[in-house]
Amino acid sequence: MIDMARVSADTPGAAHRVFLNSAGSSLPPTPVLDTVIAHLRREAEIGGYEALDERAADLEAGYGVFAELLGCRPDQVAFTDSATRSWLAAFEAVPLTAGDRILVGELEYGGNAIPLLMRARAVGASVEVVPSDGDGSFAPDALAAMLDERVKVVSVVQVPTNGGVVAADVRRISDAAHSVGALVLLDACQAVGQLAVDAEALDVDVLTGTGRKWLRGPRGTGFLVVRDRAKAVLRPKLADLQGGTWTGAESYALRDDARVYELWENDTATRLGLIAAARYLLELGVEAVEEAVTRRGAHLRSALAEVDGVTVHDLGTRKCGLVTFSVDGAEAGEVQAALAARDVAVSITRRSSTLYDMDRRGLTELVRASPHYFVGEAQLDAAVGVVAEVAAGARGRAARA
Amino acid sequence: MIDMARVSADTPGAAHRVFLNSAGSSLPPTPVLDTVIAHLRREAEIGGYEALDERAADLEAGYGVFAELLGCRPDQVAFTDSATRSWLAAFEAVPLTAGDRILVGELEYGGNAIPLLMRARAVGASVEVVPSDGDGSFAPDALAAMLDERVKVVSVVQVPTNGGVVAADVRRISDAAHSVGALVLLDACQAVGQLAVDAEALDVDVLTGTGRKWLRGPRGTGFLVVRDRAKAVLRPKLADLQGGTWTGAESYALRDDARVYELWENDTATRLGLIAAARYLLELGVEAVEEAVTRRGAHLRSALAEVDGVTVHDLGTRKCGLVTFSVDGAEAGEVQAALAARDVAVSITRRSSTLYDMDRRGLTELVRASPHYFVGEAQLDAAVGVVAEVAAGARGRAARA
Repeated sequence: MIDMARVSADTPGAAHRVFLNSAGSSLPPTPVLDTVIAHLRREAEIGGYEALDERAADLEAGYGVFAELLGCRPDQVAFTDSATRSWLAAFEAVPLTAGDRILVGELEYGGNAIPLLMRARAVGASVEVVPSDGDGSFAPDALAAMLDERVKVVSVVQVPTNGGVVAADVRRISDAAHSVGALVLLDACQAVGQLAVDAEALDVDVLTGTGRKWLRGPRGTGFLVVRDRAKAVLRPKLADLQGGTWTGAESYALRDDARVYELWENDTATRLGLIAAARYLLELGVEAVEEAVTRRGAHLRSALAEVDGVTVHDLGTRKCGLVTFSVDGAEAGEVQAALAARDVAVSITRRSSTLYDMDRRGLTELVRASPHYFVGEAQLDAAVGVVAEVAAGARGRAARA
Repeated sequence: MIDMARVSADTPGAAHRVFLNSAGSSLPPTPVLDTVIAHLRREAEIGGYEALDERAADLEAGYGVFAELLGCRPDQVAFTDSATRSWLAAFEAVPLTAGDRILVGELEYGGNAIPLLMRARAVGASVEVVPSDGDGSFAPDALAAMLDERVKVVSVVQVPTNGGVVAADVRRISDAAHSVGALVLLDACQAVGQLAVDAEALDVDVLTGTGRKWLRGPRGTGFLVVRDRAKAVLRPKLADLQGGTWTGAESYALRDDARVYELWENDTATRLGLIAAARYLLELGVEAVEEAVTRRGAHLRSALAEVDGVTVHDLGTRKCGLVTFSVDGAEAGEVQAALAARDVAVSITRRSSTLYDMDRRGLTELVRASPHYFVGEAQLDAAVGVVAEVAAGARGRAARA
């Protein structure tokens, strides 16, 4: 069980509003905020590198913290400034040539899809979509039927940005991909922090994520796990003085660990905040958080489903803390604005972020509510009450029209 | 003239120490620190995207602030998380094929040199070093003699990381490079914030820089200028939902401005701080800052040169705020530690950061002192006094040995 008294004390913002946008950028707990601010003040006092030296051991320990959180070794961890940066660093390092195939799920994220298409076009590779299971999850059987030795990458989104479905059988996806020598890139951007994610158990080759969402870390932070199979295959594109050493007029040496994908410069303050966020999660307990978030998602989903004129759109048998819905006769922006006016924060997910899936389902936009463990059920019910008012208003408009 | 009363009030850290590491990571002024912290607190209160929405106009205005600072149009500006990130984004977008030539100066930075060598090796291009002028500056005449139509890029470091020399004739370098159709990439990482830098006057095609050094902005910030000649030639490697829009199953559209090189996620707080830092500089006056920093560099350089056993190593006819020196019989680390014990912050610059130049001069490490305008002459003299003590101690050791 989560210590809700502690959580509430550490999340003062949640007392004054129903914050349902942890899938966007969550409210960091006080220990994270304080860590970042204290370091910024120290930098202003003594200088950026001088302050860095004082925290060198804590920064180094951070690789171990993320290794514990994600089920890998510290030397397999790199820190970056975003989940997409992490994903791009790994993806661009995958050797690809003309005729190679890249397989992606129907829930692929737009921030991955654009670079997938750009690189495929540049090298003459193809990007092919694996049809989802009947329940909307990435289908290992459909994948298996498409695999051959030209498949170099299988890109899997563990939780999409546009709904509550959780990729159910990542381990089976990995096993299938590995049978033809393909690498599995797991985009865990919407998973880490709300679900227990174990890179070794899933046997994925690359795992990427962000600080600002469910992990409750600072903006401008991301992380990358490069496991041994990937390490053997990937060829880092461009390193700087962090990933490499300039050894001679025409020579350089690259690091042997995942930090080859880091650049020299980073924001020490937010990185310390990211590490503090992971420690906070480990203290609360990853399983307890998963249980709490999943329960809140389910509660919200079922409450919304009972509202006249509201349709819940989440796919999947296993669902998590993202809840997507629409209101008959009201655009997503109207719903969001009405909720915001009553101190309920939600976001809108649009076609261009998950185009394969939205097109298949004939959707252009959905309201997305994403409660973290710090949102109580009474707050969820209050939010549903506002949604019901919007729905009633839309019905009234339709009746008068 | 700089308003030193304002500057001192805004730089409380400088009252308690002689901070001579603005070439590393400077002390941000209070308005910058306050901007960052206020936004971080707002994010923790209402959420990262909700706080972003409140500052959308200020963020947009930031492109205009940097356009004013750097002599370009707002649509030619992009923000990133580091100077190297900016440089890599432009460099990897330069089309290169086997047989192409890349020309660099002897003062090339290691963080550029490693990716230059990596990419040259990958595509079969060459990296060739342009011999410096007699005074140690990038030599337009030597460049002109090496140019032919296979030269696609000329990489110029305006101020190196290992000394006070300023690239004297960037405009002549640009004119020469353009005569064969080559692009000029100006690494202004150590220049912007201490020197007036005008991309249009210099006619460089790409200009990159950082927030944390002379600009006194936050760590984890950088900027990029892509002027029209570069825009016509560059092919952005991999964009995400910031640089592009996913328009169909096999299609995407890229932005038409420099923001195609940005990623969607960034740290809003530090970006606001970066913009605040540029505004602060513009308020003080870029010319006034250049005059003040250059004067402090010259004062420190001449005071150090008078100390028995100290050698000043800066090249160049035109010099700026970086001052490098060595002490006979004392390693750089010993000098740095002795200064740190007396609250004087300096850094060490090592061979692998500027290998071409250090090897040519037979150097492995230098002490680097980099006073910004907020360091008074009395503080500089105090620092020189400590250096003199270290030098005297080293002479005593040598005499006893």
